[in-house]
Order: sequence, then C-alpha cells, then structure tokens
Amino acid sequence: MAHDTTLSPFVPAKHPEVPAIKGVRFAAVEAGIKYKGRTDLMLAVLEPGSVAGGVLTKSRTCSAAVNWCRDKLKSGQARAVVVNAGNANAFTGRKGDEAVQLTAEAAAKAVGCKTDEVYLASTGVIGEPMDAGAFAHRIQEMAGTASQTAWFDAASAIMTTDTFPKLATTSCKIGSETVTIGGFAKGSGMIAPDMATMLSFIFTDANITQPLLQELTFEIADKTFNCITVDSDTSTSDTVLVFATGKFGGAQISEKDSPEAMAFHDALHEVMLDLAQQVVKDGEGLTKFVTVNVTGAASDAAAKSIALAMGNSPLLKTAIAGEDANWGRVVMAVGKSGEEANRDRLKIQFGPHVLAKEGQRAPDYSEDAAAAYMKNSEIEVSVDVGIGDGKATIWTCDLTHGYITINADYRS
Amino acid sequence: MAHDTTLSPFVPAKHPEVPAIKGVRFAAVEAGIKYKGRTDLMLAVLEPGSVAGGVLTKSRTCSAAVNWCRDKLKSGQARAVVVNAGNANAFTGRKGDEAVQLTAEAAAKAVGCKTDEVYLASTGVIGEPMDAGAFAHRIQEMAGTASQTAWFDAASAIMTTDTFPKLATTSCKIGSETVTIGGFAKGSGMIAPDMATMLSFIFTDANITQPLLQELTFEIADKTFNCITVDSDTSTSDTVLVFATGKFGGAQISEKDSPEAMAFHDALHEVMLDLAQQVVKDGEGLTKFVTVNVTGAASDAAAKSIALAMGNSPLLKTAIAGEDANWGRVVMAVGKSGEEANRDRLKIQFGPHVLAKEGQRAPDYSEDAAAAYMKNSEIEVSVDVGIGDGKATIWTCDLTHGYITINADYRS
Repeated sequence: MAHDTTLSPFVPAKHPEVPAIKGVRFAAVEAGIKYKGRTDLMLAVLEPGSVAGGVLTKSRTCSAAVNWCRDKLKSGQARAVVVNAGNANAFTGRKGDEAVQLTAEAAAKAVGCKTDEVYLASTGVIGEPMDAGAFAHRIQEMAGTASQTAWFDAASAIMTTDTFPKLATTSCKIGSETVTIGGFAKGSGMIAPDMATMLSFIFTDANITQPLLQELTFEIADKTFNCITVDSDTSTSDTVLVFATGKFGGAQISEKDSPEAMAFHDALHEVMLDLAQQVVKDGEGLTKFVTVNVTGAASDAAAKSIALAMGNSPLLKTAIAGEDANWGRVVMAVGKSGEEANRDRLKIQFGPHVLAKEGQRAPDYSEDAAAAYMKNSEIEVSVDVGIGDGKATIWTCDLTHGYITINADYRS
Repeated sequence: MAHDTTLSPFVPAKHPEVPAIKGVRFAAVEAGIKYKGRTDLMLAVLEPGSVAGGVLTKSRTCSAAVNWCRDKLKSGQARAVVVNAGNANAFTGRKGDEAVQLTAEAAAKAVGCKTDEVYLASTGVIGEPMDAGAFAHRIQEMAGTASQTAWFDAASAIMTTDTFPKLATTSCKIGSETVTIGGFAKGSGMIAPDMATMLSFIFTDANITQPLLQELTFEIADKTFNCITVDSDTSTSDTVLVFATGKFGGAQISEKDSPEAMAFHDALHEVMLDLAQQVVKDGEGLTKFVTVNVTGAASDAAAKSIALAMGNSPLLKTAIAGEDANWGRVVMAVGKSGEEANRDRLKIQFGPHVLAKEGQRAPDYSEDAAAAYMKNSEIEVSVDVGIGDGKATIWTCDLTHGYITINADYRS
C-alpha cells in the first residue's frame, strides 16, 4: 500500500481455518497491477453445475465488472471468479468494458467454460484505465495451480487498504450430512450500506437451486453487509457473490420454507454477518467497533434509517473516538434521520448505562460509570424511540485521526 | 470554550461595519450559562410594528426554542429576540418548555410586549437541563442598555465553537430611498442543510408585509443556508430569523413581483449568502473552503442532491484536505447520490482543470497543474452529469485532523 497505516486493533490473533469445499479451488499471483511485492490477482475455479447468487452496488457510477456480474447473475451459472486489486476499473468508459471482456475470455479459456459463467470484480483506484492485457495471460497458469486449500492466499490477494484478510466459515447439517460454507471479504473504507460496500466471495458445497440461492443472498445481505457503515461513502465496486457447487451429496435445496433451506439460511447468515463485521473491524483508522441498536420505531425500515443516521454521524463517531458518552449527539442523529420519534419517550443507553429516558437525562445517570464503559474497544449504543415495534441493528466504527491520515493522501 | 482550537484560516482581517438600522437595538452580557469570561446572552429589541419571517430546523428532535419560534411565526409579529449560548435546551423535556416560557415572559416584561412577540434561540450542549431562572432576570437591564450599534457584541455573544463572529450588511434602493439590511450568524459544526443548521438573525428597516417577508426568507434560505454543509449533521436548534422594523420611510413592499420586492430580495439574498458562506468558512477544523457546482442534472433538485453527496463525502473532503485532485472520489459521490448520471458523458473539473470528460480521464489532463491548483485555500469542484439542465451550487469545507480534535472531546 502506498501509505503507512497502523494495523486495526481487531486484527485476529489467529485466522479461521477454512476447510476445503468440494468443487472449488483458488489461486493467487503477483500480477503487478499496482502494488509491488504482494499478490493482487485471484482466481476461483468452480466445477460444472455450480450456481451463483449475488448482490451488487446500487451506485449510479458502478464499475464495468459490476455491470458484467449483474448481467451474468440473470442465469446464475458459474465456473470461475477473477478478482484484481489495485484498479477498480470504474469510470473507465468503453476501455473498461473491453478490459472486462478480455479478462472473462481469458478465464473462460483457462477453465474451459463460457464467458457467461465467469464473474469478475475489481477494486482499487477509480478512473485509472486498467490494462487487462497485462495480467489476463496469467489466468491459464492460475487455473492449473489452483488448490482447494488456498483460502488465505485468495483472501489476501483482494485486499486494498485492508490491514488483515477476512475469512469466515461454518457448517450445518442437511439431513444427516454436513454442508460447509466458507468465504472471504475485503473492505476498509468507502463502506456504506447501499448495498454491500466491499467485495465478498462465499462458497459452499450445498446443492441448492439458483433462484433460491439468489433469494437467500439478497435477504441476508440486507441484514448483514447492508447493515454496516464505515464512512457513509458507497463504493462503485461493491459485490457480494455466493457460489454453490452442489457437490454436497444430499438432496437439492429448493423450497424456502423447508428445514433444509432454513438450516442453510442460518449458516449462510452466520458467515455473511461474520465477514460484514470483519469489514467494519478493519474500518479505516478505527479504534472502536460500534453496535447500534434501535427499537421502538415506526417500522423496521425506520429503525434502520435511524440506526444509519447514528452510524454515519461524524459527530457521534468522533465522540466515541474520544471515549465521550455524548448522548446529545445521539439525540441529534435521531432527529436528523427524519423518522418519527417521541421526544418525550426517547431512551438512550451506552452499553448497560441508561443515560437518558423519557425525553431527558436519566436522574440516576453516572458520568463516571459511562466514561469507564466508553474505554472498551467494543461499544453498544441503544436507542428506543418510543413509537412502535420497529427494530434494527447496524455495525459501525469510530471516526479518528487515522481515517484522515489514510484518506488525505491515498492516491499519491 | 472548553477546548483549544486554532483559528479558521478565513478569519476576516476586518469585520464588516454594520450601520444602525432604525427600530432595532442590541445588548449582550456575561450570564455565566456555561462559558466563563465571555458574553453568552443576547437581546435584540424591536420597535412596535416589526414583523418576522423564519426558517427552522427539520430535526425531529428539535429544541424547545425552535418549537416556540415555529408557533410565533404563524402571526410573525416581533418585538424581542433572546439568544443564549452554551446550552441548546434540546432534549430537555417539559423543563425545556418551562425554560422557554420563563425567558419569553422576562423579555416581554422588559420590552413591554406580549410573549407571542418574543423569539428565542439556544445553542450549545444538547440534553443538559437549562436553568433559565439563572439568566432571565438580566433581560430587564439589557433592554435598558441596548444600543443600535452593538452589532459586534450581539454577534459575539451567540458563538459556540465559532472562531470568529459572522456579520454581513448591504443596502438597496427602494424608490429614491435606501433600505438597509444587517445580520449575524453562528455555526461551525453540526452543519448540514436541512434546513439551516445554525443560528442567524437578520434585521432590516424595510417596510414589508409579514407574509412576503416569510416567503422571501424561505426561498432565499433554500439557496443559501440550505446549501451549506460542514459535516452532514443536522442540528436540533437551527434557526434563521429575518426581522423588518418598517422604519424605512418609503411605501410598504407587498407584491412579490414588484421592482421593490425584487430589489429587496436581491439585497437579502446577498446578506444571507454572505452569512451562510461565513459559517462554512468557520467550519470545524477546516483548511479549505469548497464550492461544488453541479450542472447537466435531471432537475435542480437532482443537482442539489448530487452536490450534497459530494459535499458530505468524507472521502472527497479528506482528499481535498490532502490537496489531492482525487476525481475518482467525485465519481463515487455522484454514484452514491442515486440521481441519474450519464457515465459516458460525465465531466469533472477542479477549478479550471478538466480532469475527466466523456466518462474517462481527460487525455490532456495534467496532474501537476491540478496538484498546484489544489494548494489554493478556495477550491471549486464542478461536475456535469450529462443528463439535462438541472443545476445547483453548494458550499462546504474539507475534513481534517482539526475536526477530529475538536469533536473527539467537545463535551468534557
């Protein structure tokens, strides 16, 4: 990376060991796209019969790769994924589309599939023309060396300002057999929920129909990747793709209400939430991981809107960085959301500490106890707005000098 | 103030000399509401027959004083304005309403008017109960000493994190005579446009009907105070009030399309824009004042939405702080606004430098020239989104370490 950054305080002591998942292999190489001395190109090879579900950025200036994936998800057949770091291939006009086509053709040839079965993602600088010819020829060799266990290499190759690779895994029983899910994500800045705000690739050996996989991916993204914010800025490249190889031996999952689909849903939710939270825990310059709970809103959507107003408030985020239980800024953020709130029933908690209730400072509120709580590295801010039953939880981080340092001089 | 802040680089070398305006007098005292060794209570006394127009915050958790003013503006008769700094009297429940009532009664008694003719504003910490009894008794003495020339004192008494008092004045001809307008504002953080995001009080000797004054205030606020943003956070207390004493000798202004109304409109616009820009120029921690122009949008509203997405983007604002002509972040902000944009016709300029056009980097783009431009203290970013005729201009500032320093420890 071009700048010095200190590591996130949430760098895991030990990375999760993701087991091999039948039907998917990974490779990563140093293609020299922008960075030196690190891998920056990742290939995942999927066996025939694999399907994909996905959620892509709503940005109106989305990257060429995002447009490509949106088109390919219509059928959802999948055989390969190519991701590069260092250049987002966004705002690159027709040349951007050409780079995507060239990359997809190289991958299709290497893997032996149609270009319609290739998924692409690019992350890095926006607006810089990307010379796909400089790396596409590497894909052939990568397809040959790809391995079922190269999860860490794959997760590392897609990082940009990330300070650690983000991996997660779980499994669930479908009948008497075990389905495995593994995945990785990148993202650290330009993180805001509208859709997903980073790249994440999740793989499973589940045998699931493409329409159901798409439906579950969309639903779960809304409760996980769409519930995180670092800086309110929506990326041009956000992509979450879930691939199912179908190599699990049991029956196909096709009915949403079946016990099998529900078990798979819960396991997929676990992995997606884990990865989404890891993205926040690597938020640029963060010192604290913040969970925002809103209850008592007019609807779940209203609750989410209030929670995001809080999670995106520079004033609340700097207060948390300063270890200040500044609930006045919570009041402000609730107010600015534009959602209904009962001023005289508002209740505000920082962790277990009730700072305000019934529309004013709690009479028994202890500044010392609240101040001690704020020294934790994981902070929970909870608000009940006293209107209805709507609730939401989102995850964010504090806003620090580190964020400014990182972003005031990223490109140079 | 409780914290050290360096002065804004835009502190004026010389404050504007606002002339006396017939029918209005000012007083300021040290009431010790929160700050020590400075004035924190301001009274404006208006002669009988004065009218008020105003625009107030849309925050759902607005202060008790904002609720009070919203009610009084229904008739718009005005005789007194009381403003305190140090306590926002927001989220203070019934006690907050009682504090407002007590203050209004004290002012009504001191000035000899009805409480319905008293306007109030409070600014400072949110959620702290405000003891109006501790300062309301000072209003009587202030009414006695109020002077037509105490503009600077009045502007200084309402400051919080401001690093300079903000004053503006102009005049215009109505027939053969001169109408004078003067005003002041405070605001530095928690500045976002939805409505006005600070306090501003403007006075004129114009003889204008209350309905027309209200209409002009609303319209002009939308192009001035509602077009500024420091940190996207909407205050609970935002208030812009315009008072006309009617002491100007000429005919009453009552028809919006009359030459008199148009002359007055332009003069009022000049003062309101000047004050709004001064608020941004005292933005917390700023080093650069930024004008954002959007053209070619589907509508003026769409253009404003795109301009605000840019003006509120932490990534774009930190890039400007780092003197980086990072137009990739402009692309991102345009995309996140959700408004229609033609990716292949997008044009981006920093000052006179065209960095991107027709959806990609401009072929003749000079990084050195752009880098030199970014060293200016006033930066202009212009985007044409290639769709229609909609246009908007907003004003913002960069996001710096100073903002973090100020806000990570404001309350303590």
